[in-house]
Amino acid sequence: MSSLVGELLERGLAREGEVQRAGNVGRPGQDVELDGAGVCGIGLEVNVDYAAALILDLAGAVVHETRIPLDVPSAATTQVLDRIAALATEATTAVAARGGVTVGVTCAVPGLVDVEGGSVRVAPNLGWRDVDLVGALDERLGAPPYPIRVDNDANLSALAEYVMGAEAGTPDLVYLTGEVGVGGGVISGGRLLRGSTGFSGEVGHLPLDPDGHRCGCGRRGCWETVVGLAALLRDAADADDAVRDPRLDLERRLVELSGRAASGDPRTVAALRRVGRGLGLGASILVNLFDPDVIVLGGYFASLGAHLLEPLREELTARVLAPDAAGTRVVLSEFGFTAAIRGGAHLALDSVMAGPTSVPVRAGTGGGGA
Amino acid sequence: MSSLVGELLERGLAREGEVQRAGNVGRPGQDVELDGAGVCGIGLEVNVDYAAALILDLAGAVVHETRIPLDVPSAATTQVLDRIAALATEATTAVAARGGVTVGVTCAVPGLVDVEGGSVRVAPNLGWRDVDLVGALDERLGAPPYPIRVDNDANLSALAEYVMGAEAGTPDLVYLTGEVGVGGGVISGGRLLRGSTGFSGEVGHLPLDPDGHRCGCGRRGCWETVVGLAALLRDAADADDAVRDPRLDLERRLVELSGRAASGDPRTVAALRRVGRGLGLGASILVNLFDPDVIVLGGYFASLGAHLLEPLREELTARVLAPDAAGTRVVLSEFGFTAAIRGGAHLALDSVMAGPTSVPVRAGTGGGGA
Repeated sequence: MSSLVGELLERGLAREGEVQRAGNVGRPGQDVELDGAGVCGIGLEVNVDYAAALILDLAGAVVHETRIPLDVPSAATTQVLDRIAALATEATTAVAARGGVTVGVTCAVPGLVDVEGGSVRVAPNLGWRDVDLVGALDERLGAPPYPIRVDNDANLSALAEYVMGAEAGTPDLVYLTGEVGVGGGVISGGRLLRGSTGFSGEVGHLPLDPDGHRCGCGRRGCWETVVGLAALLRDAADADDAVRDPRLDLERRLVELSGRAASGDPRTVAALRRVGRGLGLGASILVNLFDPDVIVLGGYFASLGAHLLEPLREELTARVLAPDAAGTRVVLSEFGFTAAIRGGAHLALDSVMAGPTSVPVRAGTGGGGA
Repeated sequence: MSSLVGELLERGLAREGEVQRAGNVGRPGQDVELDGAGVCGIGLEVNVDYAAALILDLAGAVVHETRIPLDVPSAATTQVLDRIAALATEATTAVAARGGVTVGVTCAVPGLVDVEGGSVRVAPNLGWRDVDLVGALDERLGAPPYPIRVDNDANLSALAEYVMGAEAGTPDLVYLTGEVGVGGGVISGGRLLRGSTGFSGEVGHLPLDPDGHRCGCGRRGCWETVVGLAALLRDAADADDAVRDPRLDLERRLVELSGRAASGDPRTVAALRRVGRGLGLGASILVNLFDPDVIVLGGYFASLGAHLLEPLREELTARVLAPDAAGTRVVLSEFGFTAAIRGGAHLALDSVMAGPTSVPVRAGTGGGGA
């Protein structure tokens, strides 16, 4: 048996199949199948009102997924870091419990991230500035052997769509996510666009309305003040309406809103129409600049997409310079609020693809016996 | 002599140097220097009020450059095509006169270009729609053996800055040109960003002012209605002022405006300050989205840059989400109004770099004698 196959077996990256005896020259062959199930990447996410974790194995299967409500802007940063670390420990424990090995962790954050330095520079909606996220997780996880990374949530989501989404492989793809903020990630010519300092794709702060509402970044009228979740809820319901209660599950509140729109409630319909038009206005800028094949809507834009797509497309067609909005399609993500953790887990598996021997040798595997 | 060297010599791509006799084994060697002077690419440009041509040789020298005033929106398209073809013929004749060979022609156009199909889809400021520019030039130039291409002017300018400008080699570079319209070209990660249908980088129609002036594209308040040349001239001078007379040389009019600003004329100073701030507003969008190392200002933005940079930078710092405007520098192009024809001529030389044998064998070269 070749030493490469031996190394893969020792690390749980391959499993032995049937011995082949058909050939009559040389040693008998043996099938070896790549086996990704034992090798896992973990995606973490900290967002404005939740934290989440997801385990993806090398075969592409989601092994574990969890999400907890968390009021990040109100909490002390160390407390938030403790909670994320606890989610990570829960995930690595789950990997170990099924006999697997964790090969990497990536944490998604809605803000400007210094990927190389492992820190969050500015995350306006979290109220974070210069948080050494990788250092904090490394310490709390006991300096583990696998790499820990931090990256922008929308970049990771765009990566997830490009790698495993319904539009996988589309070389020019823009991902837009609607949460409290609005995030964007751009795949251009088959590559994630990062820019010179990694801060590209900051779509949430397109200055669309100079007289608009105050944004979390301190400016006025940024795109997310027009189409972010807070703007929608403010327009769609009174302050004491349950759909605006941040303590209640977001997805349930979105189902409630969708129901109101479907039953023709004028206030909900008008609010969604306004958001749809605002989405189209900002999207037209992105189409004029990036000329993508497809825009994938994620986060709450996907949950309420049925009510947003028509006004969005009208505005896009009216505003894009190229005829027929440059042929750009607009589709809804199928990943709900899990796109960022999927992308993060995928990126965490990347080191294995680049160098399989980075996976530690595991006790109890039969690979060394040949 | 190797057959490759023979082929280069036959095509004027190399010249023989001294015969080397230092080695005492095998055949005597001979120096062969690459000689690009005989091989020329031609860049053409049609813009709102001028047409231009430039010859670049393979050694990187500008051999010939010409620009003629031309009121394109008022002229019949066939007449404009005749004029561009005449400029091309003048250039190829100049190449032949110096014993060179033309290996390609690229025509720059301010609009949406179907590069593969060789046509201009929409050029609002020229009043063009679906013009088969390559077909028209091919016919008028007598179906020459070299390739004829058409491309967006700002894309070609960005390429020129990236390949031969003061910021050459900067991997994340945005080029902005101010003429009647405003054009943009984006180099991201060392590649010209084209998008899925080649229509990316259409910065001129960023919707910055919903109540603004009517744009050439039919919409209101596009960026070029705020910072295009027409907007500056309208603010800076009365209708009968000579600086607004399109029959006079643009560069002289810009020198006049610059002089008025330098002497403190309040109206000129205010107009330039307003344009500088408008430039900063649009540029902040580009920095949030592309996160470039550098923005290179071309066209009239470069001519009047001394008066635009301060308000531009103030606005950029105030509006970019990343601290210190993500460190993006703003510099003035050194190419005046020639960036697009430089980029076009460079692209015309590209086929030679990809395959030297695409250059026809020339009569009278000594390369075949070995």
